[in-house]
Amino acid sequence: MAERATLEELVRLQGERVRGLKQQKASAEQIEEEVAKLLKLKAQLGPDEGKQKFVLKTPKGTRDYSPRQMAIREKVFDVIISCFKRHGAEVIDTPVFELKETLTGKYGEDSKLIYDLKDQGGELLSLRYDLTVPFARYLAMNKLTNIKRYHIAKVYRRDNPAMTRGRYREFYQCDFDIAGQFDPMIPDAECLKIMCEILSSLQIGDFLVKVNDRRILDGMFAICGVPDSKFRTICSSVDKLDKVSWEEVKNEMVGEKGLTPEVADHIGDYVQQHGGVSLVEQLLQDPKLSQNKQALEGLEDLKLLFEYLTLFGIADKISFDLSLARGLDYYTGVIYEAVLLQTPVRPGEEPLGVGSVAAGGRYDGLVGMFDPKGRKVPCVGLSIGVERIFSIVEQRLEAELLYKKNPKLLNQLQYCEEAGIPLVAIIGEQELKDGVIKLRSVASREEVDVRREDLVEEIKRRTSPALCIC
Amino acid sequence: MAERATLEELVRLQGERVRGLKQQKASAEQIEEEVAKLLKLKAQLGPDEGKQKFVLKTPKGTRDYSPRQMAIREKVFDVIISCFKRHGAEVIDTPVFELKETLTGKYGEDSKLIYDLKDQGGELLSLRYDLTVPFARYLAMNKLTNIKRYHIAKVYRRDNPAMTRGRYREFYQCDFDIAGQFDPMIPDAECLKIMCEILSSLQIGDFLVKVNDRRILDGMFAICGVPDSKFRTICSSVDKLDKVSWEEVKNEMVGEKGLTPEVADHIGDYVQQHGGVSLVEQLLQDPKLSQNKQALEGLEDLKLLFEYLTLFGIADKISFDLSLARGLDYYTGVIYEAVLLQTPVRPGEEPLGVGSVAAGGRYDGLVGMFDPKGRKVPCVGLSIGVERIFSIVEQRLEAELLYKKNPKLLNQLQYCEEAGIPLVAIIGEQELKDGVIKLRSVASREEVDVRREDLVEEIKRRTSPALCIC
Repeated sequence: MAERATLEELVRLQGERVRGLKQQKASAEQIEEEVAKLLKLKAQLGPDEGKQKFVLKTPKGTRDYSPRQMAIREKVFDVIISCFKRHGAEVIDTPVFELKETLTGKYGEDSKLIYDLKDQGGELLSLRYDLTVPFARYLAMNKLTNIKRYHIAKVYRRDNPAMTRGRYREFYQCDFDIAGQFDPMIPDAECLKIMCEILSSLQIGDFLVKVNDRRILDGMFAICGVPDSKFRTICSSVDKLDKVSWEEVKNEMVGEKGLTPEVADHIGDYVQQHGGVSLVEQLLQDPKLSQNKQALEGLEDLKLLFEYLTLFGIADKISFDLSLARGLDYYTGVIYEAVLLQTPVRPGEEPLGVGSVAAGGRYDGLVGMFDPKGRKVPCVGLSIGVERIFSIVEQRLEAELLYKKNPKLLNQLQYCEEAGIPLVAIIGEQELKDGVIKLRSVASREEVDVRREDLVEEIKRRTSPALCIC
Repeated sequence: MAERATLEELVRLQGERVRGLKQQKASAEQIEEEVAKLLKLKAQLGPDEGKQKFVLKTPKGTRDYSPRQMAIREKVFDVIISCFKRHGAEVIDTPVFELKETLTGKYGEDSKLIYDLKDQGGELLSLRYDLTVPFARYLAMNKLTNIKRYHIAKVYRRDNPAMTRGRYREFYQCDFDIAGQFDPMIPDAECLKIMCEILSSLQIGDFLVKVNDRRILDGMFAICGVPDSKFRTICSSVDKLDKVSWEEVKNEMVGEKGLTPEVADHIGDYVQQHGGVSLVEQLLQDPKLSQNKQALEGLEDLKLLFEYLTLFGIADKISFDLSLARGLDYYTGVIYEAVLLQTPVRPGEEPLGVGSVAAGGRYDGLVGMFDPKGRKVPCVGLSIGVERIFSIVEQRLEAELLYKKNPKLLNQLQYCEEAGIPLVAIIGEQELKDGVIKLRSVASREEVDVRREDLVEEIKRRTSPALCIC
């Protein structure tokens, strides 16, 4: 404290000296030098406690990755990349920002979430919002009409995210896309196959992939009597059905977006349906829907898609869901979204979706928007949203400390049962004497003694091999 | 063309219809619907050739990475990461942007090159300028006083880069830093060792690491009579000596920065010196410099550093260079910069530095600028600038096509000699008959027949094993 007081006195004196010089109208250079001395003294003094002005944090919606979190990130990426490569994709990378006009008119209502850079002279730039639009720009720029590529990088959205649920303003996307003209529905089926392979390999629990088609939605809107100009905004309303009830969505359609209650109810009859290929066949018999050219094309393509999905052995993971709409403007055909399922609370209840972890679809018009001659390159792709997956894996791997002074073994075991912790390593006096560790399976309550040197291997063997952090 | 003409006519008619409705003061909804139809027709019409408004490019100073370039990038990263890990570093990651105030006051004259984000409400943000300041912020935020970490990520500078020489506005840095209190010069020596290991492994040619110390520079400025307030700006002038002549630097010091010619010449006598540990010892005998407390500390530390560098077997790669100043404000002690050497044109000439590929130094005050109580954490680190390395590797790996209709073999071999291509694979009539390929070493002019199935292995064996792209 004495040293600080002396320094403070020096700063005061030097400050007086500078003021004195200014009153004497000393040379600018002299004053400049004395001010520099003052600033130097102030720097030595260091920031005053309680006077700290700046906030020590990362920007809202972002986070650092610690070495431990990086280990999880790398393991998850390894699983994803090896699947992308197995399916023949090459990797590319693009800049983190694009010309602002490259992103303009591609994202519909979500465009307001784009981060713009400050105009500091030169080009107007925006941070990339996804990896799909930069990919389309890349294809047009390099005149590519045929490529399978993957791209893993951060994207940016000025959203108000619930970070506890693994949503951020800066987050990774892992994208796989197929560009080129191929036989119908084969690339689309491969994208769904890749999604299922990755979600299975990651062992993050049961999942379901909802599938729909923009043409079916548009056809449905048309026969229900929605004006053309309202297709996209009604699409956004429908897209909320995974979060809110039909009543709320209907209120929005009628109250905010000006549909009549009859038109809304008509839409409601459709969008509340979901099922397998039998629902596709049922709708192909729907006298009104099957008369609409767009809807008919969509339904016939979905029927073909289900044939491939059955051949690929993943049809049981897929649900044709008429409420799936997806927010982005650029989709033109099949769309899909994978959700993790929560184990039902009561037996007999349907599993509850707890959030999207992957999504994608067909966008046949996007490359043409960049090509100087409007040449189209059909594309279909998928994006894995890994932040939520990181959260799940992180929680699963977390070792916990019980905040009790004298925790009884029985209480600890009970806590493990409640928290879903699979294995307990017990070290008591007897175990210490024998040089072993008692490993208890919480579910089966079976216990075995394991030699200390074998413990790591034994735990590895019993837990996820794909995601074990060594 | 007929189809386009019909569409154009439809667009015109629909436009008239909309104008008509507006004159009739039709309902807003009716007009909205008709406008939507008009826009849809215009979209079908597609962009008009020659009327293309937007530019199809990446932002200035940025580039995409093709799959081929990604392969080079991954191989280079592999070499770097395995060295960082071998030296015990953990990996972290931080967001691409920071609060603007986190970057303020850390970069001196270079601060004008920081990219700011547009104020769209909420926090003021800037793209990271390097990985060092985010690392210091991370240490202070997590109250870490001891860590070896590496971080590989893109940083952003609004520079006017010469992209052909591997300089960009968006570019990768590969950083390794040691935070914590250790015995003097040991972490500093390890950083230099890592730099040398990586540059040797990458096999991109001969290199030299220039070393200096901020305290020697400051002490030298003081005894030459530079006012305190001008230390940093004169430092920037000195830093240009690797690009321009001493005369030009002197002109800047006198003409722009207000030194007297005598003071400038005095500086000139010092900064034009470079050498090994003997120059350190010579300056320790310099009557004026050794009387300056800062300079003396710096010189004694450099002497100790050279002892460790000799033990590490890299002293011959290091040059004590009094002209090395480094632009950034936050360095407090040893600084260094690695340059690639061009083979001299005439025998006996000194090798010419062709550009910095790695740099770093000690910054003991930076973490304290973030800590609420000003607690200091000594740090030293290095940064590998990989973009230039990518360029060199890319050039080296490029297979070339000779633009001649009937190229004679002798001309081709001569071209290889001139261009420094190491191997030639020759397939003539005889080789085709025998099922072999003649492999010729351009330097030694030796030729051997290699079986077709062994060719890839043989080329791999003869070229860089660390960087072979399969």
